[in-house]
Amino acid sequence: MELHLFDKQVYADRRQVLKQNIGHDGIILLMGNEDSSMNYKDNTYLFRQDSSFLYYFGLDTHGLAAIIDTDTGEEVIFGNELTIDDIVWTGTLPTISEMASMVGVGETKPYDQVIHFIHKAITSGRPVHILPPYRPENKIKLAAWLNTSLADLAKYVSVKLIKAVVGQRVIKTSLEVAELEKAVNVSVDMELAVIKHTRAGIKEYELVAKAHEVAIANNARLGYPAIITTYGQTLHTHYYGNTLQEGRMVLSDIGAENAMHYGGDLTRTFPVGKSFTSRQKELYNVVLDSMDHAISMLKPGVRYKEIHLAACQKLVEGLTDAGIMKGDAADAVEAGAHTMFFQCGLGHMLGMDTHDMEDLGEQYVGYTDALKKETSIFGLKSLRLGRELEAGFVLTVEPGIYIIPELIDRWQAENKYADFINYDVLNTYRDFGGIRIEDNFLITDTGSKLLGKYLPKTLEEIEGLKG
Amino acid sequence: MELHLFDKQVYADRRQVLKQNIGHDGIILLMGNEDSSMNYKDNTYLFRQDSSFLYYFGLDTHGLAAIIDTDTGEEVIFGNELTIDDIVWTGTLPTISEMASMVGVGETKPYDQVIHFIHKAITSGRPVHILPPYRPENKIKLAAWLNTSLADLAKYVSVKLIKAVVGQRVIKTSLEVAELEKAVNVSVDMELAVIKHTRAGIKEYELVAKAHEVAIANNARLGYPAIITTYGQTLHTHYYGNTLQEGRMVLSDIGAENAMHYGGDLTRTFPVGKSFTSRQKELYNVVLDSMDHAISMLKPGVRYKEIHLAACQKLVEGLTDAGIMKGDAADAVEAGAHTMFFQCGLGHMLGMDTHDMEDLGEQYVGYTDALKKETSIFGLKSLRLGRELEAGFVLTVEPGIYIIPELIDRWQAENKYADFINYDVLNTYRDFGGIRIEDNFLITDTGSKLLGKYLPKTLEEIEGLKG
Repeated sequence: MELHLFDKQVYADRRQVLKQNIGHDGIILLMGNEDSSMNYKDNTYLFRQDSSFLYYFGLDTHGLAAIIDTDTGEEVIFGNELTIDDIVWTGTLPTISEMASMVGVGETKPYDQVIHFIHKAITSGRPVHILPPYRPENKIKLAAWLNTSLADLAKYVSVKLIKAVVGQRVIKTSLEVAELEKAVNVSVDMELAVIKHTRAGIKEYELVAKAHEVAIANNARLGYPAIITTYGQTLHTHYYGNTLQEGRMVLSDIGAENAMHYGGDLTRTFPVGKSFTSRQKELYNVVLDSMDHAISMLKPGVRYKEIHLAACQKLVEGLTDAGIMKGDAADAVEAGAHTMFFQCGLGHMLGMDTHDMEDLGEQYVGYTDALKKETSIFGLKSLRLGRELEAGFVLTVEPGIYIIPELIDRWQAENKYADFINYDVLNTYRDFGGIRIEDNFLITDTGSKLLGKYLPKTLEEIEGLKG
Repeated sequence: MELHLFDKQVYADRRQVLKQNIGHDGIILLMGNEDSSMNYKDNTYLFRQDSSFLYYFGLDTHGLAAIIDTDTGEEVIFGNELTIDDIVWTGTLPTISEMASMVGVGETKPYDQVIHFIHKAITSGRPVHILPPYRPENKIKLAAWLNTSLADLAKYVSVKLIKAVVGQRVIKTSLEVAELEKAVNVSVDMELAVIKHTRAGIKEYELVAKAHEVAIANNARLGYPAIITTYGQTLHTHYYGNTLQEGRMVLSDIGAENAMHYGGDLTRTFPVGKSFTSRQKELYNVVLDSMDHAISMLKPGVRYKEIHLAACQKLVEGLTDAGIMKGDAADAVEAGAHTMFFQCGLGHMLGMDTHDMEDLGEQYVGYTDALKKETSIFGLKSLRLGRELEAGFVLTVEPGIYIIPELIDRWQAENKYADFINYDVLNTYRDFGGIRIEDNFLITDTGSKLLGKYLPKTLEEIEGLKG
């Protein structure tokens, strides 16, 4: 089988930078992932390697771990060679040392030797830097290796290592941007297939089938569970059993993750039938205006939180024109009234992970020591990216309007935001659903660049696809 | 959203039988599954509920557990109600108590109350029966609840509960057979789509894409990772990057798991081009003869191990006719020489799990106290089913011939089975690949019944599909 890798020097260079950033300060332990079981141990989900492991060590197979000794410079990959049973059941692979040499690592050891390296470091009083584990099997292993309890494991997570890894991964190189463009291009083809297949009478899962078909036929997978729904107000619904009805819209939020594990993340909202209704058109253009305004603000030095708030204000202005909101738009956003319609954030970092590096902590990825992430304000607590943009960031822009009946009922009962929301009018939209439009951008020295092929997004262009 | 359930009485009856079989003997704890993370906590694989939980409690949502008190008859489902954040992000669901009542359970509690029920039982000296956990997050929870270490958890697994659960689940009711037939029918459509799409020059993953498309468009999923390969000798390969070449075959082992989580498990082997070569035809018919012979033996009272060995002998006879093997066929099977070509078992139980109940232990599912599973004999150690067949069993029949160059090299170097294998001839088949043919059967009172629609399996029928 074929391993998908950059040149070995890419990985060696990345590790060199990491070592420089950590300084002479003990050992770095990076955990690869295991296979995850579905309904019994050997029936496993499609393997997904840890992204930081991929970034520094590239190898996309289960059962690996790696150590970088920042004092000696030593780099070791730990893994077990295949047995004849493995070969009979799952085929041949290069040996561990052959694979290691493909990513510029000269030293390999059996997997169970990791613990000796860790104990040696601990015994000699040297730090062991780990990233926050998100898989339970890695938590179990780390707790055993570090001789601590699962409950205390969080204390061993190295903020220094998190910051060093984020600092590198957050700036995408041209090699990475090329992979991201490939992934976005497949994502565009997935969206086109879904839009063209949409018609009244079929089930949402028939559209999900198209998305998977296009992704897999391009040697990719879905980077995150498809959101393809006629109830677009549910931000992350993964239920696909509804029948499409003329007059309603479909929201399709899908992205391909390619063989190198870089991903796209696109959303389009389109009519089940050939054309949008006038109400749909009106609110669609509110979202589109908000999006275009946000895109126009993308450039280094601007805080994404500012762009988010500006996009929110555009949404409020449009909703006010539509008679659903009222009062001063800036005041409404200040008060948080827009969160009746836009409960989440404008976008997030994108890379190997759809929410790039979310496992390392949104505070470290999307914010800075000077700009803390809100943790309790509805709306802002879901803004994953707030910090000043820098050239090399890759991110999503994805405003939306979501009409959530349960939220209307709760907040109307509390008379919440009554100065800004025309509840009488809003209640006539209860069954509207939701609209989101999302594209992916690279921050350049002077502004931004749309990643991948252009995917139709105006009303006319979308209706044209359905003609 | 819609929950896929049998009538509530079905679940109540199943639990009643379980209680009777356990007697007054403490509490039974059944763990539901959690979402499994891919590359960060909130990016999850498609949820798969535990099959025994589905069998007794039906509910196909994450974050549930259930207790059956065999002394008092009390049944409790533990789970947490949705918050408004859950509703905004993932939509509405019935409440826990609404869901519980759909499966005939009157009592529900918040999830963190499980531990109190367990501690109460332990304190009063009553047993807590658990099944073997296969998911690491459930291991972590169970160890905490039972106040033991992960290493000692296995001691708490209840063989009595395993045997009671297997005893019920192994006999499929007509309701279950109907679901299995639906799943097999979708699996047949998947195979037909894959076969018809196969042509020289495309990649294996383009066929995988078709399998997923058909499954998902039928509100199903793949019950296990697709094996679609032009290197069919690798029994469970999940690499799909090879280009299909005229003259080679494709082995496609795929199965749909439907909305009720019953699954099919089919395999066909077919030419990349329009027709098989004469060598392929010869060995294909060896496998088909072995399969037909095995099917003719399916009936209550016959040990599946006997059928396996009879099928092996048929394979050896055919391989002898082809000049690849030699000597007495029965002696060859007795010696194990057939395992050069057929390294695995003839089949396995099929139900909600592809290898049904494999999490409960193959010894308990496929064998009996009187008939122990072999653990070290190559070939037999991979025979998942050996016991006497009973009416109501559902199983696969899947003989094959697999030409594994690495195995030839190892065994020829050892002169292994030299009395039975013509290594000179065999080496001319090194690049042959593998052939497997697999269908699913219900054991009836008098014999067996093919599950689902007939999927072409003779040479002529297969070539007819490619015409």
